[in-house]
Amino acid sequence: MTVARSLVLEQQHVLALRDIEVPSTLGPDDVRIRIHTVGICGSDIHYYTHGHIGPFVVREPMVLGHEASGVISDVGSNVRNLVVGDRVCMEPGIPDPNSRAAKLGLYNVDPAVRFWATPPVHGCLTEFVVHPAAYTYKLPDNVSFAEGAMIEPFAIGVQAAVKGAIKPGDTCVVTGCGTIGLMVALAALGSGAGRVVISDVVDPKLEIAARYPGLIPVNVSREPLRGVVDRLCGPDWGADVVLEASGSPRVYDDVLACVRPGGTVVLVGMPPDKVAFDIVSAQAKEIRIETVFRYANVFDRAIGMIASGRVDLKPLIAETFAFEQSVTAFERAASARPTDIKLQIAMPS
Amino acid sequence: MTVARSLVLEQQHVLALRDIEVPSTLGPDDVRIRIHTVGICGSDIHYYTHGHIGPFVVREPMVLGHEASGVISDVGSNVRNLVVGDRVCMEPGIPDPNSRAAKLGLYNVDPAVRFWATPPVHGCLTEFVVHPAAYTYKLPDNVSFAEGAMIEPFAIGVQAAVKGAIKPGDTCVVTGCGTIGLMVALAALGSGAGRVVISDVVDPKLEIAARYPGLIPVNVSREPLRGVVDRLCGPDWGADVVLEASGSPRVYDDVLACVRPGGTVVLVGMPPDKVAFDIVSAQAKEIRIETVFRYANVFDRAIGMIASGRVDLKPLIAETFAFEQSVTAFERAASARPTDIKLQIAMPS
Amino acid sequence: MTVARSLVLEQQHVLALRDIEVPSTLGPDDVRIRIHTVGICGSDIHYYTHGHIGPFVVREPMVLGHEASGVISDVGSNVRNLVVGDRVCMEPGIPDPNSRAAKLGLYNVDPAVRFWATPPVHGCLTEFVVHPAAYTYKLPDNVSFAEGAMIEPFAIGVQAAVKGAIKPGDTCVVTGCGTIGLMVALAALGSGAGRVVISDVVDPKLEIAARYPGLIPVNVSREPLRGVVDRLCGPDWGADVVLEASGSPRVYDDVLACVRPGGTVVLVGMPPDKVAFDIVSAQAKEIRIETVFRYANVFDRAIGMIASGRVDLKPLIAETFAFEQSVTAFERAASARPTDIKLQIAMPS
Amino acid sequence: MTVARSLVLEQQHVLALRDIEVPSTLGPDDVRIRIHTVGICGSDIHYYTHGHIGPFVVREPMVLGHEASGVISDVGSNVRNLVVGDRVCMEPGIPDPNSRAAKLGLYNVDPAVRFWATPPVHGCLTEFVVHPAAYTYKLPDNVSFAEGAMIEPFAIGVQAAVKGAIKPGDTCVVTGCGTIGLMVALAALGSGAGRVVISDVVDPKLEIAARYPGLIPVNVSREPLRGVVDRLCGPDWGADVVLEASGSPRVYDDVLACVRPGGTVVLVGMPPDKVAFDIVSAQAKEIRIETVFRYANVFDRAIGMIASGRVDLKPLIAETFAFEQSVTAFERAASARPTDIKLQIAMPS
Repeated sequence: MTVARSLVLEQQHVLALRDIEVPSTLGPDDVRIRIHTVGICGSDIHYYTHGHIGPFVVREPMVLGHEASGVISDVGSNVRNLVVGDRVCMEPGIPDPNSRAAKLGLYNVDPAVRFWATPPVHGCLTEFVVHPAAYTYKLPDNVSFAEGAMIEPFAIGVQAAVKGAIKPGDTCVVTGCGTIGLMVALAALGSGAGRVVISDVVDPKLEIAARYPGLIPVNVSREPLRGVVDRLCGPDWGADVVLEASGSPRVYDDVLACVRPGGTVVLVGMPPDKVAFDIVSAQAKEIRIETVFRYANVFDRAIGMIASGRVDLKPLIAETFAFEQSVTAFERAASARPTDIKLQIAMPS
Repeated sequence: MTVARSLVLEQQHVLALRDIEVPSTLGPDDVRIRIHTVGICGSDIHYYTHGHIGPFVVREPMVLGHEASGVISDVGSNVRNLVVGDRVCMEPGIPDPNSRAAKLGLYNVDPAVRFWATPPVHGCLTEFVVHPAAYTYKLPDNVSFAEGAMIEPFAIGVQAAVKGAIKPGDTCVVTGCGTIGLMVALAALGSGAGRVVISDVVDPKLEIAARYPGLIPVNVSREPLRGVVDRLCGPDWGADVVLEASGSPRVYDDVLACVRPGGTVVLVGMPPDKVAFDIVSAQAKEIRIETVFRYANVFDRAIGMIASGRVDLKPLIAETFAFEQSVTAFERAASARPTDIKLQIAMPS
Repeated sequence: MTVARSLVLEQQHVLALRDIEVPSTLGPDDVRIRIHTVGICGSDIHYYTHGHIGPFVVREPMVLGHEASGVISDVGSNVRNLVVGDRVCMEPGIPDPNSRAAKLGLYNVDPAVRFWATPPVHGCLTEFVVHPAAYTYKLPDNVSFAEGAMIEPFAIGVQAAVKGAIKPGDTCVVTGCGTIGLMVALAALGSGAGRVVISDVVDPKLEIAARYPGLIPVNVSREPLRGVVDRLCGPDWGADVVLEASGSPRVYDDVLACVRPGGTVVLVGMPPDKVAFDIVSAQAKEIRIETVFRYANVFDRAIGMIASGRVDLKPLIAETFAFEQSVTAFERAASARPTDIKLQIAMPS
Repeated sequence: MTVARSLVLEQQHVLALRDIEVPSTLGPDDVRIRIHTVGICGSDIHYYTHGHIGPFVVREPMVLGHEASGVISDVGSNVRNLVVGDRVCMEPGIPDPNSRAAKLGLYNVDPAVRFWATPPVHGCLTEFVVHPAAYTYKLPDNVSFAEGAMIEPFAIGVQAAVKGAIKPGDTCVVTGCGTIGLMVALAALGSGAGRVVISDVVDPKLEIAARYPGLIPVNVSREPLRGVVDRLCGPDWGADVVLEASGSPRVYDDVLACVRPGGTVVLVGMPPDKVAFDIVSAQAKEIRIETVFRYANVFDRAIGMIASGRVDLKPLIAETFAFEQSVTAFERAASARPTDIKLQIAMPS
């Protein structure tokens, strides 16, 4: 254990920027990373405002943060893929690599995964972290630290796009234009979708989507989503892939109405309760439904999409706070301005 | 049009065995089939007892029946795959072969499909039918007419097994031990499943399942399904594929509890209303959900499975009625004895 | 039959622009199209210079051309998806929609396909054609006739990309930078590939590729392909998808050397003879190999990719000839200038 | 290191049953297994008779054997899935679980795999082995040690069947009726194939196949394979999946001739040299070709298939030798009797 200055959630509603003991043993397959930039995620905020997410309860002080980039400062004796000085980003969930799920390539659904800033595991809003080299990814020169800290949320979008098996020229619909909805929509475009309709009821969010060519924003409080899809795809048909990213219980009828016969629905948004789901409507089109839980094997894809210039996440970063202003940053994040797609914290250099 | 003796649903609750005009023009790609055996399906009964299924309302007298075998009595000028005298069974839905869905190989979800005994289309409980040769399948010598008339319901099971992409040695769970549940379970076994748990609350149905080696019947009113799966697959894991065939709204939590991380759920049963569905539980295991609507491209598979002796449907035929007893047969079917997995009607020879 | 002015291949080496009788009966599911632009394909040239392609021998005068756009001038009585005046392009192969292959969605491998300008079927370098509406695709307003006539060759690239199941951020390699290689490479980019290495030995072809961001041209007479891939993907790994588009027998070792463990090879190029193939090397990486035969169900995707601006084919059109100069155009095409990626013929308006 | 009595290949042509030092450190994730039964594989014989397989050369004395069952005698501190006394079989290749390939679920193609009896790694023809618990599989009570030692070769067949994505009722063809061909054919049957044609030129091998209902043996020195397929599938079509298990360079034309349009070829057999491969014929049917390298994630499937009684491997065990007769057993195996599908060695109890 070592002492590091960190943003600590002491308990619900109580944040402190202070020294705390964090694990620091560098195993032979690990790297040590000096953190550079950390994004604030809705789950960080939820632990701050609610003290728990489902069964995960904050019982001890916990360092927040799981969206990070940084610089390698030390490598374990077995590490071959990284050297000191490499600019990197990190996949925040560490599975048991010998588990049944991991052997199948599905390491994200290994029940033994330890995930940053999920009680009782500390997060990365701290000076240094030790992490397995296998879950640490080198950033190309043309990907900034700020973009590097966006790879984690973008990876969710990429996972959704991969699960949806989007084919070139597909018409997609994304319901929900929050951070995750935008990540999903941009990942869909970057996967070859010809056009992506994105729906919400909040205009300022849709205005951000409107800046991206290929995204077609629709305010469903003014215009029925199915009508837009009919115009694009013809009646009696529908979108090839519909990706649900709002978690709103009211949207599922639209999801089923908008997908084409034989099409695919990808469920990314997490509704707070059970949802009234129209199974017979899904069957009548014989649709396939994929679900998304974080990501596996897509960090390198996500980095490649940014590096190629195909997807530009920079316009989504609303503001960057100094580490010393972390508490202020969290209060701002908790206020949930619709245009704050992403707030980030820069560590002192 | 020609006149044929047929079982006619005159209106809700009113059946008659009488002569009726039925279409008879033999196009160049059609065959004419003398009907030999017809199975009674739950949908036939539902039209009889309710007068409609969802939006399909019986407004004119309609011939019932869509599970049939017979003998070719005439072939159109273009037909190459069949000759007079061939013993055959028929796929009862005829799509527009040039539709978007049909071009993709998904002809079952073509909105233009015309399906036997679905208003206003006549069914096959009649002396002769004219049918496209492309949807008429030759029976091997070792497949009887009675088995041939079981291919249609069995095809639903095969469609479910194919959608589930069952791999050899898989552990499967089928919820519901009615006609469709048994078809699904036998199709799963015939697709390489190592063992298939089948659940219900009615013992006489489960006793029929128990006759088949490989099927493991579970009465969920006495034993929790998840416990059985834990015993077979270990805790923290689950069944590879869970196939829902009951349509009961109470079963969906079990379905999600029993599937393994990264596993597949296939929805075959059609619940009468929307279902309270726990999307977050599905996401936590990142499961894939497939839905089934009838079948496409599986009649030849279904026939091959019967012909190979891998699946034996004969024990499921509870009784065979003469055509003249058709109304009696329907009344018996409407009484829904749990062991009447399939009742059939034999046409006069 | 009707008489139409057409480019006729009278026999090997003999072209004539003259009136010829062509089929003209408009069936209920057909449309009549006034041809606007036609591209010249290597197969047209091959029939001109060799008089046959494999088993297909020109025994009677045959109209050439199968890459076309035009305007609907008449529609059959059943046609719902098109109206007179629509700007369209056409899929040149017409299957039996009731064949086993077509029912599976694989209509391109139906042995009964009739394909434009493949003996004894006339092509489309003629004033009018009659074609099934199901194989005729409306062009969006922002897709020109010239681009419309490029959809057919581009569809081969899209078919290859779809068969390769390219995922976002993939590294791809395309061997061969001729017309088909460029189509494949642009389709791969448009399908989400992060970067596409394209190899050849002819610099002027590679210079055309170099104009496209995302394409990485490699002259393999100066630089080993595997070295480039090592630099991009790291040693002990390789490209996710390698698409062979040269048909050169010397390239297959490179193909196998460049693909990653568990990766995919797509074979598009058609080598003139059997190829010495290193099966054990393919097995050691357990690669999947897909083959491509024309295309099925991708014309609408290809159009969507052009309409979205994701792929720009216009720079590939080297020159457009008037219909009256067709023979000159074919002589130019037969001279095989490396930068003549596509030559087109514009019909008189 | 510890000393254990083992079958040691001292060098090419020189076997000895003697004590040798073998690794014995039990890590926290390992188990120690007392070996019970070991099968002799063609690769063991090849090292004995040739001293090398491709680049793998026997330079130091090496323990042979990689097909084994046994009993757990000790478990590491982290092991949860196994206890002392469990009857088990073992997957002989151990990957780096954090490699790129392993993270994708493709641990068999990890270049770092260490595989039993592949120089310089010792095999399992020895009293005890230490092995990762994650690659050690419990045998159900109804699977014998002899069958347990057959799981390894059968797993190759299961891998081939899984790669082939065999669907229920498929018609399959397996070329080659040696040990691997029979494993592939039985795995195909156990995966739902309706019938499996198996070809060879050696009648005694085909007679063993003939004992299994569902296998259709064909001696291709007397009967053309394509003719048999035509009879079963109709002309202009073919087998759904063709699995090549002979490694004979002469068989590849038959493989391509026998597969249906849109079908799948699985390459299991390893030809000694490059093969003349007809790529254009493969393209004309747009077939998919899968390759097989050992296996990944199928040992539990293979065990499940044996336990369910679906596949019976016992008739393939020609003779079992005592450990003390190991050298005799290897000489018998090297003599390659056609009916010696599998020879096994039983360790002293």
